[in-house]
Amino acid sequence: MKENTANTDKPVSIGVFDSGIGGLTVVKTLRAAIKEANIVYLGDTARVPYGTKSEETIKRFAREDTVFLIEKGVDLIVVACNTASSVALSYLKREFKDIPIFGVVEPGVNMALNASKTGKIGIIGTIATIKSHAHRKLLNKQGVLKVYEKACPLFVPLAEEGLTKGQIPRLVAEYYLHDLKEKVDTLILGCTHYPILMDTIKEVLGEQIKLIDPAYALALQVKSFLNNNGMIKNTGENGTLDLYLTDIPPHYHSLLSIFLGFTPDTIEKVDLKDISRC
Amino acid sequence: MKENTANTDKPVSIGVFDSGIGGLTVVKTLRAAIKEANIVYLGDTARVPYGTKSEETIKRFAREDTVFLIEKGVDLIVVACNTASSVALSYLKREFKDIPIFGVVEPGVNMALNASKTGKIGIIGTIATIKSHAHRKLLNKQGVLKVYEKACPLFVPLAEEGLTKGQIPRLVAEYYLHDLKEKVDTLILGCTHYPILMDTIKEVLGEQIKLIDPAYALALQVKSFLNNNGMIKNTGENGTLDLYLTDIPPHYHSLLSIFLGFTPDTIEKVDLKDISRC
Repeated sequence: MKENTANTDKPVSIGVFDSGIGGLTVVKTLRAAIKEANIVYLGDTARVPYGTKSEETIKRFAREDTVFLIEKGVDLIVVACNTASSVALSYLKREFKDIPIFGVVEPGVNMALNASKTGKIGIIGTIATIKSHAHRKLLNKQGVLKVYEKACPLFVPLAEEGLTKGQIPRLVAEYYLHDLKEKVDTLILGCTHYPILMDTIKEVLGEQIKLIDPAYALALQVKSFLNNNGMIKNTGENGTLDLYLTDIPPHYHSLLSIFLGFTPDTIEKVDLKDISRC
Repeated sequence: MKENTANTDKPVSIGVFDSGIGGLTVVKTLRAAIKEANIVYLGDTARVPYGTKSEETIKRFAREDTVFLIEKGVDLIVVACNTASSVALSYLKREFKDIPIFGVVEPGVNMALNASKTGKIGIIGTIATIKSHAHRKLLNKQGVLKVYEKACPLFVPLAEEGLTKGQIPRLVAEYYLHDLKEKVDTLILGCTHYPILMDTIKEVLGEQIKLIDPAYALALQVKSFLNNNGMIKNTGENGTLDLYLTDIPPHYHSLLSIFLGFTPDTIEKVDLKDISRC
């Protein structure tokens, strides 16, 4: 484990990575829970999305993202991307034993277990997340055997297009979710983009189905880890948010406003080419 | 110019690259027009899509794709990707003077000019294609001043999901195209994925608007170049199709069946990492 920062004056630095901009929904939740922390965010916008790609490629990308954040000197790493969490988290933990790494799958599953009354839990995510069965395996271990999985590839481009309300997203949500309606009482939103579509998903599924945004449980898990290790300084000041992107896409202003809603302290384009050689 | 193959017995070898699998619609058209040619196809599936990324990044990717195909010994290169054609073609022609390189923008524009009676032409494509104004600039040069441009980012994921008919794609097409209906008599389908949605686009726009698939004009342009240079051997035999992909995505079987409809001779996963260093 990395030496913790309890004895220094520097605020804790949390590294967060995601395949793109979507992970900023997790950053927002982390900031609300742990406002003093500095956040270093890497969005792999040059290679986004990960969710349609193979396990091997996702692991390679996740490794490069992790090396980048470690080189930035962060104290711990959050894998905000559900796809990378589902496919690559155990691999990253094995490869990088000196730094704590948190994913969004386990917190989401625990939150769903607490919320569900019938033990019938659903999970929606990218093609790669669903194909990994990461959530199902964890739920099965906890004795939950009825798990319903559904890949919803169109939700990401809908959210990025800002098309979150109205007939089109409602029909797409019905297309994906109509057979989940009667089967589950709790649904994990297993992709950082999906909370943006929360209202539409609620409209389609009805109020009786609980929607789980794993970011909340993840933020609490990270906060509790920091507290237990004396790593939070109660300075009363807001931490910084430094954004690193592997590409600055033409529409990034609109993406930032959809997913973050405030302006980061710095935005910088970076190249992971050197890291590819690790 | 590369020495042409007129005096050897080897069939001509056409290199085709695309950001992903979509360019296989262009391969199908090329095969129909020039059946004796061997085709070497590179799909950059690890970094797909290009259409949401910046000019700088698209140029870098297109350069790496081109180097890969040159190293495979092809006689000429087709940039099947409309985004790369729009953003990077002149750059590639400047960088690689020894090999003929063809894009899909100019053939599409010429085909539209021939088809249009009113001179009111529309172009739909990815965010990066539309932002480049590549089609508009060429049309303006030809004296066509009324050009209507519209980015349609959801068409790509709809086509990849196989969701090409019915209420959802129709509503999405209406969402993007409703203001083009009265304005143009000819519309260029400026993305390799869009021909897959041809029927739905026709349904929304009506039969009176001509839809232009640049692949046809491109195939004729390439065929005429090969004929003029004595590069086509009339062997009567079908050429081969070798597919190189930078990632083998989990759903590639379904993508191949949507975009190609027959089985390539070989499929191989390749890594462009070494090329990144060029």
